[in-house]
Amino acid sequence: MNYTLPFIPQRSGKPRQHGLTMVMDKGLSLTEAASMVEASGEHIDFVKLGFGTSLITNKLHEKVQLYQQAGIRPYLGGTLFELFVVRGMFDDFVRFVDSLGLDLVEVSDGSMRMDHRQKCAHIAQLAKRYTVISEVGSKQADVVIPDADWVRMMRTELEHGAWKVIAEARESGNTGIYNKDHSANTKLIADIAEQVGMANVIWEAPLKAQQVWFIKQLGAEVNLGNIATNEVVPLETLRLGLRGDTFFMHLPDHLKQ
Amino acid sequence: MNYTLPFIPQRSGKPRQHGLTMVMDKGLSLTEAASMVEASGEHIDFVKLGFGTSLITNKLHEKVQLYQQAGIRPYLGGTLFELFVVRGMFDDFVRFVDSLGLDLVEVSDGSMRMDHRQKCAHIAQLAKRYTVISEVGSKQADVVIPDADWVRMMRTELEHGAWKVIAEARESGNTGIYNKDHSANTKLIADIAEQVGMANVIWEAPLKAQQVWFIKQLGAEVNLGNIATNEVVPLETLRLGLRGDTFFMHLPDHLKQ
Amino acid sequence: MNYTLPFIPQRSGKPRQHGLTMVMDKGLSLTEAASMVEASGEHIDFVKLGFGTSLITNKLHEKVQLYQQAGIRPYLGGTLFELFVVRGMFDDFVRFVDSLGLDLVEVSDGSMRMDHRQKCAHIAQLAKRYTVISEVGSKQADVVIPDADWVRMMRTELEHGAWKVIAEARESGNTGIYNKDHSANTKLIADIAEQVGMANVIWEAPLKAQQVWFIKQLGAEVNLGNIATNEVVPLETLRLGLRGDTFFMHLPDHLKQ
Repeated sequence: MNYTLPFIPQRSGKPRQHGLTMVMDKGLSLTEAASMVEASGEHIDFVKLGFGTSLITNKLHEKVQLYQQAGIRPYLGGTLFELFVVRGMFDDFVRFVDSLGLDLVEVSDGSMRMDHRQKCAHIAQLAKRYTVISEVGSKQADVVIPDADWVRMMRTELEHGAWKVIAEARESGNTGIYNKDHSANTKLIADIAEQVGMANVIWEAPLKAQQVWFIKQLGAEVNLGNIATNEVVPLETLRLGLRGDTFFMHLPDHLKQ
Repeated sequence: MNYTLPFIPQRSGKPRQHGLTMVMDKGLSLTEAASMVEASGEHIDFVKLGFGTSLITNKLHEKVQLYQQAGIRPYLGGTLFELFVVRGMFDDFVRFVDSLGLDLVEVSDGSMRMDHRQKCAHIAQLAKRYTVISEVGSKQADVVIPDADWVRMMRTELEHGAWKVIAEARESGNTGIYNKDHSANTKLIADIAEQVGMANVIWEAPLKAQQVWFIKQLGAEVNLGNIATNEVVPLETLRLGLRGDTFFMHLPDHLKQ
Repeated sequence: MNYTLPFIPQRSGKPRQHGLTMVMDKGLSLTEAASMVEASGEHIDFVKLGFGTSLITNKLHEKVQLYQQAGIRPYLGGTLFELFVVRGMFDDFVRFVDSLGLDLVEVSDGSMRMDHRQKCAHIAQLAKRYTVISEVGSKQADVVIPDADWVRMMRTELEHGAWKVIAEARESGNTGIYNKDHSANTKLIADIAEQVGMANVIWEAPLKAQQVWFIKQLGAEVNLGNIATNEVVPLETLRLGLRGDTFFMHLPDHLKQ
C-alpha cells in the first residue's frame, strides 16, 4: 500500500482462505498477464483460464509459470473439464493438467448434463491430487435449479472434497445467482450463505454493481470471482472502502453521516 | 494449438478464403498491437484501422509493418475513404494508401450519400491495384435500406471487383443488419446469405451474442468483422466449439445430449 | 498527425485552456500507462487517478513521473480528498499530494455531505499552492440538486479559486448531468454552459454517445472528462470530424449533404 488510512480493514494475506479474488483470463497475451501482475498481483488469488481458451492461447506454459511465480494459482475453467468429460476423456484431462503443472482444478456441469453422483465421484478422485473448486449452476438461462437443490448440491460437493464451491454467473452476470436484469437473486444467495457457509463459496460477480452488492451484504472478505482483468484494483478499493459506493462502510459511527 | 481434442473442426489456414476474422483497431499503441499479435495473431486475417484513427495514431507505419509481418492485412476503415472522397480527394486517398504500403482498401458510403454507380466506379478503379472490400449499409439508424437493395448493391459491387462485401453494424452493433436491441435482422441476413452467397460476405458482429448467432446459423467458417481486440481468442473458441454457447455444435450425434 | 486533411479544426496545443481531455486511470500498470502515452499522450491533458486506487496501485511514483514527463498532469480523484477529509486529515492529504509531486488537486463532495462554505474554504486554501479543479454533483442517483444550485455552487467555487469545475457523471455516466438512461440533462447543461461559462467547465462524458452530444452542442474544443483509456484516440477523431458521428461537422456548406 502506498499510504495507509485509518479505519481501512485488514485484509487476509496470501495464501488466503477468505476474501479471495478470482480473475477471468480469456486469452491474455504474456505481456498483458505480466502487466496485470505488475499492477495488482498481490490482490489476485486465482486466475481462471476461461472456457477453452487455454487450448489455443499462445505461450500458455510461460503464462502459467508467470502467474505461479507471482503467487497466483491459475486453473482451467470448468468448461474445459466438461469438454474432456463429454468426450469420455477424463484421464486425458488429468494428463493435460499435469502437463501444465497446475495444482488446482475446477469441476463443473454448466454446459452439459452430468449425473450428480458422477460429478461428486470426479470431485473425490481429483481431490486426492489437487485442490478442487466445484461449480454449481447452469450456463443456460432457461435451466432453473430450485434453491434447495443449489444448497444440497453445494454441500454434497464440499463433502466429497471440494475446497470451495463457485456460484455460476457467466462472464455476462445475468444467469445463475442473478436475475436476467443482472440484479442479485437475494433469496437464493441468502440461503446459500446461511446453509452452505459464506467461507465455502466463491460468488461470480463480473459486474461492479454485483461486487458492491456482495461486499455490502457479506463484507470486505467475501470471495468473488469472474473479475475482469482491469477491475482488480477497483474491486480492491471497493473491499477497502476506498470508493464512493462503500465510502462509509468501515468508518466508526462517529464519522458516519 | 496447445492440445487437440477430437471433434474440433479443421479451420482454414492463412491466407484464408473462409472463416475470416477482421479485428477493429481504434487506436492501439504499437505495444498493444504487438501484444495482440503475440496472443492471437494466427486467428486474425485483417485489422481495420477504424474510421479516421490512422490520421492521428502514433507510430502508424511501424504498426502497419508489425501486422503485415505477422501475416495480418491492415487496411483503412471505410470512413477514411469517405473523408477523402467528400473533399474531392480520391487521388490523395490512393497516395495515402500507397505511402503506408497497404494492399487492401475498403470502399463504403455509410457516412455520406454516394451515387451507387460512382461507388462501383471507385471499386472497379481500386480493384485494378488492390484487394477491395466494399461495405453496404448506413451508419445512421434512421436510414432504412430495403432488403432487396442490400442484395442488389452487394451483388453489383462484387461484379465491379469487390473481393468481399461487408454488412454494416458499427462498433455498437445496433444498426444495419441488427435491430436497435442488437438482435439479428434474420430475414435480411437470410436473404443476403442466400442471394449474395455466404462466402462473399463479412458480417460485422461486435457483440458476443451476435457472434454466437452467426456461428450457429452459418457455421464455424462464417466471416466475421468488427471483433474487439480482446475478443479474438474468445471468438476462436466459439468457432471451435470450446465455449458453453457452442459446446455441442461439432459433436457427433452419439455424444450430443 | 500522419496526414492533414483540409477542413479539420485547429486544436489548441499544450498547455491547453480549452478542448481539454481528462482520462480516468483506475489502476493502470506502469506498462499500460506507458502504452497509452505512446499511442495518444499528446491528446491527454490530465489523468485522474480514480477514487482510492492511488493508495493501492503499484509503482505509483513511477507512473506519476511517466505522465508528467509526457506533459500530462496526473491528480488524485476527488473521492480520495473526501476519504482524508471525512477522517479529519486534510493536512495529511496535502502531505500525500506533495509526496507524489503533484501540482493539481481535485476538491469534491460527491460521496459525503460537506458544508459548501467549508468546501470553498478548502478550495481557497489549496488554490494558494496548487491548480484546483472542483467537482459539483452527487454520486448518489437519488440526491437531486436543483439546477440553480448547480450554477450557484460552480460560480462560487470558481470565485474561491477553482481553475475549472467538473460536472459529475461517475464512470457509469448515469447520474449528475445525465439521466438514468445515460441521456443528457439538456436543460441543466444549457444552464451551466450559459451561466457558468463553457470554458470553465469540464463535463464528465464516459460514454461515446455523450461525447458526441457534447461535441455537437458545444464544439470540438469542449472540455471532457472520465474518458476511458482506450477511447482517447476515438474521442480525438470525434472532435476533429474524423468519425461518422461528426463527419459533416467541420465541412464548409458546399460540401455538406
